[in-house]
Amino acid sequence: MTRIDDLPIRDELRGKTPYGAPQLDVPVRLNTNENPYPLPEPLVERIAERVREAARELNRYPDRDAVELRTQLAAYLTRTTGHRIGLAGVWAANGSNEVIQQLLQTFGGPGRTAIGFEPSYSMHALISRSTGTGWISGARRADFTIDVEGAKAQIAALRPDVVFVCSPNNPTGTAVEADTVLALYEAAQAAKAGTAGAIVVVDEAYGEFSHRPSLLPLIEGRPNLVVSRTMSKAFGAAGLRLGYLAADPAVVDAVQLVRLPYHLSAVTQATALAALEHTDTLLGYVEQLKAERDRLVTELRAIGCEVTESDANFVQFGRFEDAHAAWQGLLDRGVLVRDNGVPGWLRVTAGTPAENDAFLDAVRELKKEN
Amino acid sequence: MTRIDDLPIRDELRGKTPYGAPQLDVPVRLNTNENPYPLPEPLVERIAERVREAARELNRYPDRDAVELRTQLAAYLTRTTGHRIGLAGVWAANGSNEVIQQLLQTFGGPGRTAIGFEPSYSMHALISRSTGTGWISGARRADFTIDVEGAKAQIAALRPDVVFVCSPNNPTGTAVEADTVLALYEAAQAAKAGTAGAIVVVDEAYGEFSHRPSLLPLIEGRPNLVVSRTMSKAFGAAGLRLGYLAADPAVVDAVQLVRLPYHLSAVTQATALAALEHTDTLLGYVEQLKAERDRLVTELRAIGCEVTESDANFVQFGRFEDAHAAWQGLLDRGVLVRDNGVPGWLRVTAGTPAENDAFLDAVRELKKEN
Repeated sequence: MTRIDDLPIRDELRGKTPYGAPQLDVPVRLNTNENPYPLPEPLVERIAERVREAARELNRYPDRDAVELRTQLAAYLTRTTGHRIGLAGVWAANGSNEVIQQLLQTFGGPGRTAIGFEPSYSMHALISRSTGTGWISGARRADFTIDVEGAKAQIAALRPDVVFVCSPNNPTGTAVEADTVLALYEAAQAAKAGTAGAIVVVDEAYGEFSHRPSLLPLIEGRPNLVVSRTMSKAFGAAGLRLGYLAADPAVVDAVQLVRLPYHLSAVTQATALAALEHTDTLLGYVEQLKAERDRLVTELRAIGCEVTESDANFVQFGRFEDAHAAWQGLLDRGVLVRDNGVPGWLRVTAGTPAENDAFLDAVRELKKEN
Repeated sequence: MTRIDDLPIRDELRGKTPYGAPQLDVPVRLNTNENPYPLPEPLVERIAERVREAARELNRYPDRDAVELRTQLAAYLTRTTGHRIGLAGVWAANGSNEVIQQLLQTFGGPGRTAIGFEPSYSMHALISRSTGTGWISGARRADFTIDVEGAKAQIAALRPDVVFVCSPNNPTGTAVEADTVLALYEAAQAAKAGTAGAIVVVDEAYGEFSHRPSLLPLIEGRPNLVVSRTMSKAFGAAGLRLGYLAADPAVVDAVQLVRLPYHLSAVTQATALAALEHTDTLLGYVEQLKAERDRLVTELRAIGCEVTESDANFVQFGRFEDAHAAWQGLLDRGVLVRDNGVPGWLRVTAGTPAENDAFLDAVRELKKEN
């Protein structure tokens, strides 16, 4: 039998394993920050209807530029952030992972570097690796906020081409202040003085759950600032794989130099458009999840856990002497949370009230045992 | 206004334009090798049904490993090529472009090179560029077949890490003999003696239209040989973006090191599964298109054109003193074909009988004028 290592794979891939949370069959799955609410039935019907229409022309390539979808995404952003943006400033791809990959292929890549402040969304580092971009691990403070002075010093010294700021940050949960992003943006441009500068990517995958407003308006007058978003969380459509970005139209033009032609299928475009028609209903679920998220924070603290401030649909809680043992203890009680490898901490997704109750009960039992 | 060149894009992207055929609104579109037959209505209904089901769980991530889809693709390959292959030897992605991108991220990339024999599918070179893989342009003979001895010499001298063989070749149309692939495979391994060898990718996007059998059985005992396929052409589903590969299971394991997690949406998987249920009907259209393709070859020759032997759903015809002027002449008559930049030649997709008649009439008129 041939093994991976018998093949001529790239050296940096040797010994690596594919990324991905364990997909276990457990009663309460609170491990991947999915939205627990299935799409409402009228939306399910509308998806079937729009996909049926699209299927009648499936023998043709899809709209390569996804004009209708990008127009509707722009309208959504304009409405919810108050920042007026149009089709030309929005780009969409198969999940925000593909958005990030396209950004790194355009602005990162061999001979270039990207920095992110860890712990953070681990795909930033992994996609950097798979696009040949050098990775710089910037650190956070003990309270998981970005150490702005430290970060600025690191940026000045290492002159990264791409800076990732995840806000709200995954897996820790807290949103980043606009001032912090502005400070990092200025530092990144100053470090690359004499060139076209550095790209700063604000990953707002969980933006709709935040107590704070979107950082989208910061793109005004800052052509090197990109905000990435997804329909996976707030739109309850993780299965759809629809990520998008908002930025100066020049950035949208630039990523088209590396995007695979016709990357976004006609069924993906049709399904996303149907979901956007039901935005208000879906944002109603977001409000419920925010309330549940706040309840999780309160009750976990009442149980005696430490909890990181959360602007997301998940909560980082601890601290455990052995986080992996605690993860297993919860799993033994039928509750799957996420061990992101942050020593002492675990991450739980806000589920339905019943799921959250089951989770809290399991934590209480665990606490009693120890 | 910010322009692309004001941004810190990679140097090799400067001055480039996005890939893609012009999408013009013309009565007869025979330029992108689409299948002219819309999916049959029962299949359209089945897609709506399966997507409706999938939409009910759209809040959850899709099956990351696309097990059901890969199982059905394997069954299809086994049935149509006579080569027994299972789930473990099949991988799927968003179009064969993404399959190629994953292969290059795994086996190509910075410091490595890929070779293809041009003119060929231009995305092989473009995705090499966007993945940082050096590109080597191997030449074809005047009759557009691969010059095996010349290719072997080039491989021995330049030691590429990836070898692309497009069969049937796009845009020229002719399938490649198994002996040629075997010779290139041996040469590529010999050139990399002392390492794990080189990957040979046989791109069979148009495989179902060929007079010759699939080269899939060659993967037996050759872990570095990969066959890529697509549902865009034979399955009449260009809008679906579903490409796949067949290879040693170790190759499938290896590409999972670079694939974006959950890259294949639940709606894509559902739609592809529905289409696979209707394989026999769709392969019936393929037979009609093969007959039309053969008719195009015969009639174009009768008109006095030179035609390259075609195993695909398109035909390369010429020769024109000014191919682009001929392209424009056909467009002026309402027929859009493809100018792939091969001096003297154009490419026409086999459409419906009526579309092909319109095309042939336009060529006759053009010939009379000149």
